Amino acid sequence: MTINYSDDSLALHTDLYQINMAESYWADGIHNRKAVFELYFRKLPFGNGYAIFAGLERMLRYLRDFKFSASDIAYLRDELHFKDDFIDYLKDLRFTGDVYSMIEGELVFGNEPIVRIEAPLVEAQLVETALLNIVNYQTLIATKASRIKNVAGNQTVMEFGTRRAQEMDAAIWGTRAAIIGGFSSTSNVRAGKLFDLPVSGTHAHSLVQAYRSDYEAFHAYARRHKDCVFLVDTYNTLKSGVPSAIQVAKELGDTINFIGIRLDSGDIAFLSKAARKMLDEAGFPEAKIVVSNDLDEYTMLNLKAQGAKVDMWGIGTKIITAYDQPALGAVYKIVSSENDKGEMIDSIKISANAEKVTTPGRKKLYRIIDRENGRAEGDYITMYDEEPQAEERLKMFHPVHTFISKFVTNFEAKNLHTKVVENGKIIYTSPTVKAMKSYAKDNLELLWDEYKRSMNPEEYPVDLSQKCWDNKMGNIERVKEMVEKVSKGIGGF
Amino acid sequence: MTINYSDDSLALHTDLYQINMAESYWADGIHNRKAVFELYFRKLPFGNGYAIFAGLERMLRYLRDFKFSASDIAYLRDELHFKDDFIDYLKDLRFTGDVYSMIEGELVFGNEPIVRIEAPLVEAQLVETALLNIVNYQTLIATKASRIKNVAGNQTVMEFGTRRAQEMDAAIWGTRAAIIGGFSSTSNVRAGKLFDLPVSGTHAHSLVQAYRSDYEAFHAYARRHKDCVFLVDTYNTLKSGVPSAIQVAKELGDTINFIGIRLDSGDIAFLSKAARKMLDEAGFPEAKIVVSNDLDEYTMLNLKAQGAKVDMWGIGTKIITAYDQPALGAVYKIVSSENDKGEMIDSIKISANAEKVTTPGRKKLYRIIDRENGRAEGDYITMYDEEPQAEERLKMFHPVHTFISKFVTNFEAKNLHTKVVENGKIIYTSPTVKAMKSYAKDNLELLWDEYKRSMNPEEYPVDLSQKCWDNKMGNIERVKEMVEKVSKGIGGF
Repeated sequence: MTINYSDDSLALHTDLYQINMAESYWADGIHNRKAVFELYFRKLPFGNGYAIFAGLERMLRYLRDFKFSASDIAYLRDELHFKDDFIDYLKDLRFTGDVYSMIEGELVFGNEPIVRIEAPLVEAQLVETALLNIVNYQTLIATKASRIKNVAGNQTVMEFGTRRAQEMDAAIWGTRAAIIGGFSSTSNVRAGKLFDLPVSGTHAHSLVQAYRSDYEAFHAYARRHKDCVFLVDTYNTLKSGVPSAIQVAKELGDTINFIGIRLDSGDIAFLSKAARKMLDEAGFPEAKIVVSNDLDEYTMLNLKAQGAKVDMWGIGTKIITAYDQPALGAVYKIVSSENDKGEMIDSIKISANAEKVTTPGRKKLYRIIDRENGRAEGDYITMYDEEPQAEERLKMFHPVHTFISKFVTNFEAKNLHTKVVENGKIIYTSPTVKAMKSYAKDNLELLWDEYKRSMNPEEYPVDLSQKCWDNKMGNIERVKEMVEKVSKGIGGF
Repeated sequence: MTINYSDDSLALHTDLYQINMAESYWADGIHNRKAVFELYFRKLPFGNGYAIFAGLERMLRYLRDFKFSASDIAYLRDELHFKDDFIDYLKDLRFTGDVYSMIEGELVFGNEPIVRIEAPLVEAQLVETALLNIVNYQTLIATKASRIKNVAGNQTVMEFGTRRAQEMDAAIWGTRAAIIGGFSSTSNVRAGKLFDLPVSGTHAHSLVQAYRSDYEAFHAYARRHKDCVFLVDTYNTLKSGVPSAIQVAKELGDTINFIGIRLDSGDIAFLSKAARKMLDEAGFPEAKIVVSNDLDEYTMLNLKAQGAKVDMWGIGTKIITAYDQPALGAVYKIVSSENDKGEMIDSIKISANAEKVTTPGRKKLYRIIDRENGRAEGDYITMYDEEPQAEERLKMFHPVHTFISKFVTNFEAKNLHTKVVENGKIIYTSPTVKAMKSYAKDNLELLWDEYKRSMNPEEYPVDLSQKCWDNKMGNIERVKEMVEKVSKGIGGF
């Protein structure tokens, strides 16, 4: 095929309807009205008790570079037939709004705003799709990684999934997110290069096949590499692979660092125990056993329960695609916008499904931390002008059974939103990925164990303040009245 | 964080072990020995009866551009501490091999070589991870798309999944693959620009919220856009959305092209029937009903069974992530390589799982087509020097129950591999995506219906020639003998 247009911008990385809506806003002259959008998901992935936010750095780069390139403009005009007046307007468009966001490694729960965009309506609309694309995937993977790391405990978990990733961006941003969530290293060298991540890996079956025997291949590897993990399952794990690894380790002694062996097929529980015994008896009790082969937190739990002798875990497909739930359903909803008098008016989206009804208004999000035990008691969503820290005691409701409630008194209300973009300018500098990972780990310490179980965790409270709740109910009532008028033909049209 | 290295090359988009192995090959001077690798998957995804290959164009671009950039070299040296002699060697490395591949839109089945790489060992090794990353995802999505299109029949299916895609590359390459598999359009404007795809979409809920009522929003949209599909479920589908759409369509008459309405929540079966009735009674029997909301082939089958009145389907999450099976397990295995005497020696990987044992040797792949009925009788894998077309009759075995076999006589043996790269030079020009889609559609005509069922299709025969089978058994025997010697300590070391 002929490539007519160069891939020199991400401004068109959006759904066509966003540009169509932008055109309507612009044509009606309401495009620069101030609007507030919130980005959040409704339901935690994997049945987990929490999620770990990742994606901010990528979001900020996208917003910083947001600009329709000459080729974007040409395409919109020549192929999609947008009209010149609107096209001319798009040429100079940049993102000029403010962005408030959680930082990467923050714990996040359902129905709480992760990111709040305050920008001219048209700008906030045009960036929606890309922001969701970024946040949905990275947050999903960081969360899956945390689940896997919870099962691994102090053992090392390495990300090996590039070949099964959903294309290249997923491989690199996914492995970065996995490390934020608790993984130790990636096999992807490009990701290591771009994000300063630890990179790991030794050799594959093809080395053994190229040298025709385990023994020859391990020797060949050791001739050039000090740190050796030998992959032992090319021909026969216990009869050839492990004996050859032991033989080479004995022959080479201290000239190499015999880290251990890797098992990539067969019954890991049985083979790891047998291999452990062989290594111990051969005088290599320190040699590690690395395993890989379609593992996830469930297989790991089972292998551990069966007493598998595993020291390090290589996780591929199941982490990089979040195999058991490959999408997070974050949405991006308008909660308030300016009317023709310059007043901010809250707005709501109603749905037959109660959980899809949006919570209107410009809001803030706090984590309520008990000063006595240092644990998080719940998250608290308020209208923008509320100051929960000024309250002497807060009433926290059970998220589902709202008639169950508790009062929190000696608390700290931690504002979870950082202003990261001001008037279109990035004012936040991302820390290293290592620091994000460490921040996520520290945050998990805030949580009671009941929220961290792999299966059937307790539901962490995410409450609306009374004012926020009342505002939502008021909006629902107003919409109901409007709908009734339209349906009776007495208004609306 | 500080970005020290620019993202200017894909040569490091690989697993670290590939580079470690490359170093061993190079250090031992065997890096330029000729090797043959094959790329294939073992099991069809989604329980489908066939897959549709996609990814060649991206593969060819990757191979064409394969080169370690100055920043790659600096990273390998300064951060991963590869030694200068090897680094110097990598600087000038390019892909110089030959590649034989299926073309995009080809039907592909389990255990047959999709791509065959014949190249110096080191080059074939270094490109493995990226090629798998590319082929696995695009083939997965093209196949999922074909399943969905099979259920849609003559109805239009549109790809709407960017926000839920696993990062940006997945959004654009995935939607391209979906179109090869049978989708009509994408919502992603960048994908439309880069791959010349039809782009579709009108407006979202936020437009309705920004204008505060369905009626106002639809009018606003129609003021600037001729083709109108109104989204009717922001407040109340049947009481406000549909009546407002009808009212606006009536008021504007021929000044707009009222294509129809879109439903994005609630019970699609019920709402589509109710909306259809309202549209018909209002004099818009031609107005289309577009639906979206977490749909896939299973929901579509159910909605159709319930008599839902749907004209066009918008599919998001479930297509772009291949939600029910988000990874295809294609592998890349060495099947033959040169020894120190310059002879090509076949090689095999043994596994406790029979289906993971590789099929050694440089091979060809044919589709056996019955000249009388024009249908595919099965695929036939031969050693490179066999010519099935020269045979008077071919014995085709049942893929599982090999004692069941049939003879095919009046057949055409279509070679499914095209030489696409010669001595590192791309010698194949990809057709348009539209042509690939049409090729896939034509290919499906070759298949009997029993292979095209969504659930529990018959298994399509993929046979090895007798020579190929004998070669495999011979290799297994040789490895078994070697393993026995190693385990008895009488050889191998």
